Amino acid sequence: MQIVDSRAALQRLSDEERARGLRLALVPTMGALHEGHLSLVREARARADRVWVSIFVNPTQFDEAQDFEGYPRDPERDLEACRAAGVDVVYLPSVEEMYPEGAATWVDVDRLTEPLCGASRPGHFRGVTTVVSKLFLAAKPHVAVFGEKDFQQLAVIRRMARDLGFDVEVVGAPTLRESDGLALSSRNVRLGREARAQATVLVRALDAAEAAVASGERSHEAILSRVRAEIAKAPRARLDYAELRDPESLERAAGTLASPTLLALAVRFEPDPDGSGGAVRLIDNRVLLAR
Amino acid sequence: MQIVDSRAALQRLSDEERARGLRLALVPTMGALHEGHLSLVREARARADRVWVSIFVNPTQFDEAQDFEGYPRDPERDLEACRAAGVDVVYLPSVEEMYPEGAATWVDVDRLTEPLCGASRPGHFRGVTTVVSKLFLAAKPHVAVFGEKDFQQLAVIRRMARDLGFDVEVVGAPTLRESDGLALSSRNVRLGREARAQATVLVRALDAAEAAVASGERSHEAILSRVRAEIAKAPRARLDYAELRDPESLERAAGTLASPTLLALAVRFEPDPDGSGGAVRLIDNRVLLAR
Repeated sequence: MQIVDSRAALQRLSDEERARGLRLALVPTMGALHEGHLSLVREARARADRVWVSIFVNPTQFDEAQDFEGYPRDPERDLEACRAAGVDVVYLPSVEEMYPEGAATWVDVDRLTEPLCGASRPGHFRGVTTVVSKLFLAAKPHVAVFGEKDFQQLAVIRRMARDLGFDVEVVGAPTLRESDGLALSSRNVRLGREARAQATVLVRALDAAEAAVASGERSHEAILSRVRAEIAKAPRARLDYAELRDPESLERAAGTLASPTLLALAVRFEPDPDGSGGAVRLIDNRVLLAR
Repeated sequence: MQIVDSRAALQRLSDEERARGLRLALVPTMGALHEGHLSLVREARARADRVWVSIFVNPTQFDEAQDFEGYPRDPERDLEACRAAGVDVVYLPSVEEMYPEGAATWVDVDRLTEPLCGASRPGHFRGVTTVVSKLFLAAKPHVAVFGEKDFQQLAVIRRMARDLGFDVEVVGAPTLRESDGLALSSRNVRLGREARAQATVLVRALDAAEAAVASGERSHEAILSRVRAEIAKAPRARLDYAELRDPESLERAAGTLASPTLLALAVRFEPDPDGSGGAVRLIDNRVLLAR
C-alpha cells in the first residue's frame, strides 16, 4: 500500500494509472475508519482496478470548533485498516496543502444545501463541496464512493459533480448498522452510555414511519407525527429535524406521499448525567416508498 | 481540425491524448476571435503538442443582458480562424451542456474578485471562475493560456487553480495592440467612430503613468492624478476606475511605489452623438516598475 502526502505526486500517479488503462476509485474519508468505511472500500473495489482512500479531517466543514477538535483521530489504526482491506493508495494531505496561505476559493451548491443539515450547520456543505472538489482534482478518479447515511451530502456532491462536469461517477453505498440498528458513524464512540442506549431511537423512528406507510398512511404530517412520537420516547434525545423531501432535489415534497420520498432525521444527544460522553448529533435517513 | 460539442466526447479525447503522452493546451475564448486570441494560440502551441480552443459566450459572466446580447458572434469565421491557426480541437459546448437544468453550483474566489472590475460588474467573476472550472474539467488540459489584458481575470483564475489544486498550469500572454496602441478586444468593433478615435486614451494614460514613474515619481496619488488628467482629455471617455494594486493579491498597495505595482484602468464610452456604436467599457493595465 502506497501512502502519498503530496497532491502533485498523487496527480502523477493518477496520470500513470489512467494511461495504463486502469480504473481508479476514490473513497474520501475523514479517518476514524469503521466497518461503514470498509464497506465503501468493498463497493469501490467492485467498480475499479485500484482503490484509493483519502484521509483528511476537513476543518472547513465543521460548524463548531469543538466538534472539529473532538473529532476522533487515529491515523495508525486507519492505515492498518486500509492495509487489511487491500486499499492500494492512501492520500494523507496536510491542512496547508488543502488550504494554502491566502486560499480564497470555494465551491458552492445553492438550494440543495439550504435545508436539513444545511440549516442546522451553516457553512458545512460549502466546506464539503470545496474539499471534495480538491480531492477529485488531486486523485482524478473514475469513480468516487460515498455513504448513503449522509444522504444530503451525497445528493449535494452528485449535483456538484454533474453541474461542474467532473469526469467522476459518484456512487452511493448503503448504510451499515450496529446489531441494534444504530447507523455506523465515527461520532458514535463519543456517545455516553445512556445516550448510546437511546441512540437507536433514530432507526426506530424510521421503522415506525415505514410501518405507517406500509399500513396505508400517506399524509406527510401523520408520518412525521409518528416519527416525533418515537423520538419523544428517548428522554435524552432532542430532535433537530425530521423532514420529508424529494430525494434528488431535496425540495419539500407535497403533503401526500406519492413518489419515493426521503425521510431525513437529525437528533442531538447531550453528555450523560454522570458527565460521560460528549454532545453528539446523529443523522439517519430512509427513502419511503408508497407501494 | 476536430470540432467537439459534447463534454463526454472531449473528456474521452483528452484521456486518449494524455495516455499517448501528449501535452494539451487549452485556450478558452468567447469567440469573436481576433489577433489577440491568435497570439494566445501561438503561446499555447509553444507549450504543448496539441492546441485546443473553446468557444462559449458565457451568459453568467455578463452583468448586463444588453452586453451579452450585443456580444459579437461569428462562429463560422471563428472556426476558419482556428483552422488557419493550426488549432487541433475546437470545443463548442451548448448553454444546456454548460448549465444543465437545475444547475446550482458556483466556484467563488473571495477578496481578489471584490475590487476593480469586480466592483463595477457584480457577479462577473463568479461567472468566469465557474465557467473556467467547467472548461478545465471538460478538456483536462496540462496548460491553459489567458490574455494579460484581463489582468484581474488572470490573477483570479491563477488563484482558483492553485487553491482547488487543478492539475493545470495557468499561463498569461502579453496584450496585443492596434497600431495606435489600443488593446485588442472583441468589444472594440462596437465603438462609434469618435469613441474609437478617443479610445487610445487608455494606453496614453498608462504611458503617462509609466513616464511619471521613469522620471522619479513614486506617489500613488500623483501617478493616479496623471492618469485621470490624461483620461479627462478625451471628452467621450468616462473613467470607471484607475487603481494601483498588488499584481498578485490585488490588494491596495501602500501609498508609495516600491515594488512592481499593477495600474488597472476601466473607461466607458457611450454611443457616438450620431448614434453610431454602442455603450462599451474598455479595460487596460500595466505593471509599473520603480527601477
